[in-house]
Amino acid sequence: MTESEPQPQQIRYAAPALREYMIRVLAAAGASGEDAAISADVLLAADLRGVPSHGIIRLFPYYYQRMRDGLINPHPRLRVLCETPTTLALDGDNGLGHPTGFRAMQMCMEKAQTNGCAFVTVRHSNHYGIAGYYAMQALAQDMIGLSFTNAASLVAPTGGSRAVLGTNPIAVAVPNGAASPYVLDMATSIVPIGKITVYQRAGLPIPFGWGIDSSGVVTSDPDALLHGGALLPLGGTEEMRGYKGYGLALLVEILAGVLAGAAVGQQVDADPHNRVSHIGHAFAALRIDAFRSLAGFQVDLQKLIEQLQQAPKAVGQVRIRIPGERAAEATRLALDEGVPVYAAVVETLQTEGEAAGIPFDLPPLG
Amino acid sequence: MTESEPQPQQIRYAAPALREYMIRVLAAAGASGEDAAISADVLLAADLRGVPSHGIIRLFPYYYQRMRDGLINPHPRLRVLCETPTTLALDGDNGLGHPTGFRAMQMCMEKAQTNGCAFVTVRHSNHYGIAGYYAMQALAQDMIGLSFTNAASLVAPTGGSRAVLGTNPIAVAVPNGAASPYVLDMATSIVPIGKITVYQRAGLPIPFGWGIDSSGVVTSDPDALLHGGALLPLGGTEEMRGYKGYGLALLVEILAGVLAGAAVGQQVDADPHNRVSHIGHAFAALRIDAFRSLAGFQVDLQKLIEQLQQAPKAVGQVRIRIPGERAAEATRLALDEGVPVYAAVVETLQTEGEAAGIPFDLPPLG
Repeated sequence: MTESEPQPQQIRYAAPALREYMIRVLAAAGASGEDAAISADVLLAADLRGVPSHGIIRLFPYYYQRMRDGLINPHPRLRVLCETPTTLALDGDNGLGHPTGFRAMQMCMEKAQTNGCAFVTVRHSNHYGIAGYYAMQALAQDMIGLSFTNAASLVAPTGGSRAVLGTNPIAVAVPNGAASPYVLDMATSIVPIGKITVYQRAGLPIPFGWGIDSSGVVTSDPDALLHGGALLPLGGTEEMRGYKGYGLALLVEILAGVLAGAAVGQQVDADPHNRVSHIGHAFAALRIDAFRSLAGFQVDLQKLIEQLQQAPKAVGQVRIRIPGERAAEATRLALDEGVPVYAAVVETLQTEGEAAGIPFDLPPLG
Repeated sequence: MTESEPQPQQIRYAAPALREYMIRVLAAAGASGEDAAISADVLLAADLRGVPSHGIIRLFPYYYQRMRDGLINPHPRLRVLCETPTTLALDGDNGLGHPTGFRAMQMCMEKAQTNGCAFVTVRHSNHYGIAGYYAMQALAQDMIGLSFTNAASLVAPTGGSRAVLGTNPIAVAVPNGAASPYVLDMATSIVPIGKITVYQRAGLPIPFGWGIDSSGVVTSDPDALLHGGALLPLGGTEEMRGYKGYGLALLVEILAGVLAGAAVGQQVDADPHNRVSHIGHAFAALRIDAFRSLAGFQVDLQKLIEQLQQAPKAVGQVRIRIPGERAAEATRLALDEGVPVYAAVVETLQTEGEAAGIPFDLPPLG
């Protein structure tokens, strides 16, 4: 996100209060206490890390509503379909994506601890929030963690004019001792769809390259993109090698969709009130000390990071950041001063909370 | 590559003749017959697949010259540094990157066959050509293959004005039955440095976003980029989320550099006549049938590919391609009609071949 992009108004709330509220709502829709707590943790992590598109904004319209409508199973039984010493194919039984993802990654890490590396797929799941949360589970065990998911189709393949692939994120976390870990958590589209809506509401044109209209032509008009157009994959146009971003989006669709045996492409449900999502995830874990001493790894990683941080800055830039650094800073700030929630989202929480009998009456901070 | 980009003149040669010539040159520099054959195969594969920057163009200036100068060990002993049932850390003993990479991937696949998945690192290696070659080794065994390498620093991190990271490719190959496999083989920079040289020689400006000048400002002047500037990672500017490409380039540097215990960042030698490269690689293999039946996987992959191929085309586009399709078509054409080699490269082969006592006297085709 660049400094010049439009920012909707935000209101800050205490993190523990937001978490408790989300647990109450999810439990009211039928989730077990443990599942509701995991879901709330992952949703809160998104708002803390500066990824509000995957946080509390989705509490009612996606998670609560889908459980109430019978489109998400509040009492799933995570089943093993296929197992080897290092791999696991799971069926999420249409449960909430967060506890499903959390447990799948725990199982992946157990296998990696014993055998060096492991890879786990999940079918029949739902939107699991920020992919980075699961990759970051590996950090506490000094492992490298990876997490992928497919998602509702919003991204056009290179040469196409319709959305076929999801924003299919790639997340990787690498421990870095006492320093800030490397955490890459990137959609394989240039921007998420919510960013287009922000420009639309602000009455501003979108940067040229972010997406296309319904004839497949790059457009600066957010309305044209939102009505029959599509997001472009990372890179954007062919001249800028957008086919690489398309290749990465398709890779995630293959790992988290095809390999997992989940829905793929346009089969993934885009409408929250329509039908079961059948989203797929994939997770991997890698023991660092299977390759070299953890101490040696940390020393060399720190040297590389110092090379980057100490490199000459571009005109107008004062810092070179490591992936995840900005999110770690946002988290510290949000824990200190309150978690920012868009004013428009607060209004929805108030309306929906009232309707659900769980009023959103948290006191704003500052 | 878009149709409108400048194309230097090319001369076509028979693939087997080019291969034999490369084997003779590599053997003359001291490589064993087996190593020379593997190197020639990988170099030829680059020219066949339409990636001439990694093919015969490098035969003399990198591989031959470095072996002659004692900077590449012609008789390496690949050593195991650390081993678990699914992981292997190797030392390439400063040998040619191609046979080192080929054997490391074979060992990775053996472990994956037994245990489901495997991950292998290599330190103390050299430029290994196209990353895709090693990922594609997995196809014959119906496995998913991955390959990464770090490389001489040519890419600036987001916010920086100097090259710190390599063009660090990510390659992934996924078998697709009788149909063309999915093969992603992408540098994490927008374009390779050789593409900038092509524009420079043609006296043309480079597309805005490909790279920066020495003050870190995006430039259209190829000279400004080549003299103290740097390539930009996939995405390019911050507005286009170039930090995602930077994050991917750094991920490859961590896996193939730090985890492998190789040189990293600016330590990787950029000058072919300077010092030992100490490049690192990483490889992974994943058994598809550890997750689901191979037949089920192929059916679903084909369905996904059909969704993509049958999606509406953007104005002016007639096809939506799968990653690797264009390279497979280029290969078929090159095997039929001859392998294209830039006229300027042919001149160098003639001069260098003469000097080495191995005249490049192959008859051009057509």
